[in-house]
Amino acid sequence: MDDKTLQQLGEIESLKRTVARLKPAQTALVGSGDDAAVVSAKDSFLVSTDTLVQDHDFKLEWSTGFDLGFKAVASNLADIAAMGATPTVLVVAVVVPETTKISWLEEFADGLQAACDKLSPGASIVGGDLAAGDQLVVSVTVHGSLDGLQPVLRSGAKPGDLVAVCGSLGKAACGLALLQFGKDDLIRSYDDWVNAQLRPEPPINQGVVANQAGASSMLDVSDGLGKDLLRIANASGVAIEIYSKDLLGFEAMLELPAQSLDVNPRQWVLSGGEDHALLATFPPTAQIPRSFKVIGKVLAAGEPAVLLDGEPADVSGWDSVLGS
Amino acid sequence: MDDKTLQQLGEIESLKRTVARLKPAQTALVGSGDDAAVVSAKDSFLVSTDTLVQDHDFKLEWSTGFDLGFKAVASNLADIAAMGATPTVLVVAVVVPETTKISWLEEFADGLQAACDKLSPGASIVGGDLAAGDQLVVSVTVHGSLDGLQPVLRSGAKPGDLVAVCGSLGKAACGLALLQFGKDDLIRSYDDWVNAQLRPEPPINQGVVANQAGASSMLDVSDGLGKDLLRIANASGVAIEIYSKDLLGFEAMLELPAQSLDVNPRQWVLSGGEDHALLATFPPTAQIPRSFKVIGKVLAAGEPAVLLDGEPADVSGWDSVLGS
Repeated sequence: MDDKTLQQLGEIESLKRTVARLKPAQTALVGSGDDAAVVSAKDSFLVSTDTLVQDHDFKLEWSTGFDLGFKAVASNLADIAAMGATPTVLVVAVVVPETTKISWLEEFADGLQAACDKLSPGASIVGGDLAAGDQLVVSVTVHGSLDGLQPVLRSGAKPGDLVAVCGSLGKAACGLALLQFGKDDLIRSYDDWVNAQLRPEPPINQGVVANQAGASSMLDVSDGLGKDLLRIANASGVAIEIYSKDLLGFEAMLELPAQSLDVNPRQWVLSGGEDHALLATFPPTAQIPRSFKVIGKVLAAGEPAVLLDGEPADVSGWDSVLGS
Repeated sequence: MDDKTLQQLGEIESLKRTVARLKPAQTALVGSGDDAAVVSAKDSFLVSTDTLVQDHDFKLEWSTGFDLGFKAVASNLADIAAMGATPTVLVVAVVVPETTKISWLEEFADGLQAACDKLSPGASIVGGDLAAGDQLVVSVTVHGSLDGLQPVLRSGAKPGDLVAVCGSLGKAACGLALLQFGKDDLIRSYDDWVNAQLRPEPPINQGVVANQAGASSMLDVSDGLGKDLLRIANASGVAIEIYSKDLLGFEAMLELPAQSLDVNPRQWVLSGGEDHALLATFPPTAQIPRSFKVIGKVLAAGEPAVLLDGEPADVSGWDSVLGS
């Protein structure tokens, strides 16, 4: 079997074989292979970048190349969805050790493509960069289109608005706990939760739906519900109250693995990131999309800025430098 | 003096202080701080990404934070210039060890901004990501605008076209050789060459000028003249001949340090990358801009694809995985 390393093949040949796994971009007027790609746009485009670092954001013992490609794309697509927009094109820079096998890179490319196909058909990879380093780093830059809509910022929440979530909360954190616990039989039994950590599937197309329904603010929950609620509260100059009774549905989804690990699932729901659920506020007059579950309401500014049943909520969460 | 590390400050505060050094983007409708930036565009945008890895692409013994920020932006701007376009906005993902001091990050941000200001006024940083890792990695994604022009690809060279260069050739390689030689007095004496390696200044605004003059193909010389000529030859299905008499001017610029190091400067001119000079072909009828120096001509396809005075040229150069 021909499974050479990056060092044996060199950058150009390795990049060529990796790119060969990707579908050509429909929105690209000029695709990868030149100094830059040329992408069609109307009036404006959105851009966001996010990086995954080995042993900080993922472990190779847990993630295959496919998983990592999928997750890198999924988490970036969520940033565009959280603006109420549609993802268009992505560029992917990857730093890998020279001893990395080309088959790993090919699987990684397959994961990139699979996440586009599954989560945001029409989005595609138009460029990339491959470099050698000691540690695996994946840096994705994603672009999006508003198609005439206004972007949904973090700063638009107003007192009286309702707070709602689309997607799962705590599922990826539960999967991480299962992986950290390290019992193979549990990991196999609860593969759905483990997969939510390894290959999250945020509801990308619901970002535009929320925008069309009049969402006043939105972000994707990447660092924990409490911490991300605080981001909206701070950016909007408001306070936010959520209710534990409205979180029970999210907790119920985690009950079985939580029992096996003897953990209170609420902790995952409140502080777990990486599901990239969409967290939005809607004016009281809005017809909130059915995919969104109301969990609280926006109050006038006050301290603490985030409340759970009237008490200060846990707004700690994940810091990509400090950890959890 | 308040010079805390990334670990002491955390991601959010570190990012905030770093971003505070940057000027707000004029073309950004929504700047950094939300899930994505929103950038105005007309019909299309260009996008390209490039990564610098510690001890592969730079050494911290040689480069300050300012140098590294400047170089990361300069090399990316050159990719947009090489398409015959104008740079607009950049996003910067940086992975740094947790022990990195905030003052280093602030200098890095100053370098990013200085390169925009000096090389492409109007271009600006609209977003970024800061993550912790073992090794410093800087990944920049740059965008550009064609303003109604067609992009200049690598594939448009035709037999009979003239080959021309704008910018320096071999100067950055000479600077690298001086740094590798490691004698402080030489490094001080030839600081102009050393600076070309640490903070290259490609002629960014000449990319559009070449486009307007009818350039049939273009790229920026990042891996060596011979290797990058081969890229144009392969993409265009042609052969290219250059003449050593036309390289003498480039060699003369390197003569003093070359003598001190007892090196033939032609080697730097032919195989040295990282100056990011613009290498273009022009139809014989074109009025070639005065900033471009003609060094050869395009021939019908044949082997070898790149000739120097009728003999096979050295097309080896830098491979970002394999090295030189």
